[in-house]
Amino acid sequence: MIYLDNAATTKALDVAIESLVTYAGEKFYNPSAGYAPALEVKKALALATEEFAQLLGAVKEEIIFTSCATESNNTAFECGIKNKKGNVVVSSMEHASVYESAMKLKSRGVDVRFIPLNKDGFVTEEALREVMDANTAFVSIIHASNETGEINDIATLSEVAKSINPKVIFHSDGVQAFCKIPIDLGLTKVDLYSVSAHKVGGLKGVGALYVKKGLNIQPFIVGGGQQNNRRSGTENVGGIIGFAKAACEYRESAKRIDANGLRNRIISKFSGKDWVKVNGSGNNTGYVLSLSFKGLKGEVIANMAQEQGVLIGLGSACSTHVKSNRVLEAMGVDKSFANGSIRISISPFTREDEIQIATDIILNSAEKLKEKING
Amino acid sequence: MIYLDNAATTKALDVAIESLVTYAGEKFYNPSAGYAPALEVKKALALATEEFAQLLGAVKEEIIFTSCATESNNTAFECGIKNKKGNVVVSSMEHASVYESAMKLKSRGVDVRFIPLNKDGFVTEEALREVMDANTAFVSIIHASNETGEINDIATLSEVAKSINPKVIFHSDGVQAFCKIPIDLGLTKVDLYSVSAHKVGGLKGVGALYVKKGLNIQPFIVGGGQQNNRRSGTENVGGIIGFAKAACEYRESAKRIDANGLRNRIISKFSGKDWVKVNGSGNNTGYVLSLSFKGLKGEVIANMAQEQGVLIGLGSACSTHVKSNRVLEAMGVDKSFANGSIRISISPFTREDEIQIATDIILNSAEKLKEKING
Repeated sequence: MIYLDNAATTKALDVAIESLVTYAGEKFYNPSAGYAPALEVKKALALATEEFAQLLGAVKEEIIFTSCATESNNTAFECGIKNKKGNVVVSSMEHASVYESAMKLKSRGVDVRFIPLNKDGFVTEEALREVMDANTAFVSIIHASNETGEINDIATLSEVAKSINPKVIFHSDGVQAFCKIPIDLGLTKVDLYSVSAHKVGGLKGVGALYVKKGLNIQPFIVGGGQQNNRRSGTENVGGIIGFAKAACEYRESAKRIDANGLRNRIISKFSGKDWVKVNGSGNNTGYVLSLSFKGLKGEVIANMAQEQGVLIGLGSACSTHVKSNRVLEAMGVDKSFANGSIRISISPFTREDEIQIATDIILNSAEKLKEKING
Repeated sequence: MIYLDNAATTKALDVAIESLVTYAGEKFYNPSAGYAPALEVKKALALATEEFAQLLGAVKEEIIFTSCATESNNTAFECGIKNKKGNVVVSSMEHASVYESAMKLKSRGVDVRFIPLNKDGFVTEEALREVMDANTAFVSIIHASNETGEINDIATLSEVAKSINPKVIFHSDGVQAFCKIPIDLGLTKVDLYSVSAHKVGGLKGVGALYVKKGLNIQPFIVGGGQQNNRRSGTENVGGIIGFAKAACEYRESAKRIDANGLRNRIISKFSGKDWVKVNGSGNNTGYVLSLSFKGLKGEVIANMAQEQGVLIGLGSACSTHVKSNRVLEAMGVDKSFANGSIRISISPFTREDEIQIATDIILNSAEKLKEKING
């Protein structure tokens, strides 16, 4: 069985599991308790937070750990909008958890505006300028697309947003960018940034939200006042420390590989075929590839590949229950292509021979299917 | 080092960790993905949910997994109140996450009413009747106190609540009761019930909310529509399956021990001493013991015990940052006693010799401190 995005079977995961076992077992103490071994756990948590923050170009006071990026995105939308007045601007290439958070605001009567995408599937400065105005309270633009890997220039976009309304809160969903491409949030005007552990070799059930120093947001989850009263609930100590360690490990590995080189190797197999379309401009993290096959069904290609031992998805797993692909539609991908879309994602640990075999099987499956359909 | 509430170092934890490692490693697939190994993970999750539900006298459709009981309690308060009209009634012995959720509603202008406690520290039918009326939309009464172990008769209290307003939503925080005393929610009128994994030997970062069949609550966290669109975010598969297994293990062990017998053994060491008070009526889970020492400081006793290798808390770890004990105050415990309070909690895995040693050290510390203060 070949699963190219194999981050969860590598050294990053090993360190994550090791942390979990340590802090679930021998060092299981609740960091909020008063006795000495609990204080040691609290210290370890603080240290891990510091290491983690550095990966984002942040300091530890700017990090809130959550249960997943979906919670981080929900927190940003529910608590990041200060005076609850003004309109909300969201790109048309967001993950379901941002999209649904925006729709929740809309259902409460908030003026929610979507930024259209260009045909390459990213957000331009001009498009942002057209949708935003001085009354915009909150902007959310994904850093790298979970569907195509396309990168948005959030440093510039956040500058533009603040130039239109200096009080606007700028949020970015960084799940697909974190540890994959360099990020230095301290140098940008991004206020809120969401990340997930299990996308960088950490465990499911852990995420984080960066909150720029000076921005006070209300807690989404209230209670015992953990994490400086910004997210209550006993900290998932092992999961958090493991997240920090796995992310460091993943980041180092990512630095050593040329993800776009690997991605291009896959693309080259499909070049010259007018019935295959690569979605996106090529300004890509390198870790996600969206391919559309004219007149074919992505689901059938994926099934055929699976029968030959290659696991691929059709798009975001978080949108499996949705029939059409919202993001490809917003990019203007023709329906004849869009229905035949598959998503291939890789990790810094993907081997070249795996890529070779998987690509051959996918191409072969698509060609067979095409022949069958065309008679 | 003796830590009497040692559930997190036992077989329950072993099975929890085993599940986590399996579903983070070899079976790491996202249960929302479309390919075969992911569907197997989805099936395993459904099976574990079924086993878990049985422990509550529920069916799997009634269970939402969350990241902790604090999230479960927040969900109950934010999403369990249907028409957002009417008053909210909460007991005076709630965990911080219920208390703060209620205060959040109050800050939005909701009429929040607290049920006073009797001197034994539980909620009587009469007290509920006095505070509730036909306009009460939501009632929250903890099943067993995290401070004293005192049990509320939620079967009767939920009946009473529904007799006053058949449309009221009845929530109970069951964290300290789950797996410790028998629960059959299907036989009660309880609508919502919160539980936590790490209180029954499972891992931190996992909780659940029971939602009675027929009650549709809005999701607290929106996004990819996981868990039948009731709680979005990639499921913490290993954590959840481990929770189910650990809880079964914990429940079986709890059935084999006489927790109240062990608790009484601790109490007997302090009997006849008018400067020591056991807080509560004795209708107790057996797993928590709150002791107050007249004229002494709980913190000092805890520190002295710690120096001799025994770890005890002063009260809920989730209230460590709070100076006074809200629950003991509501029970009317005199300040001269309340400031000298400690909390001892045990698990089904606590050994009798540990109890013996710890109790001797605690009594000895308190007596030494008393002598020192009195001259």
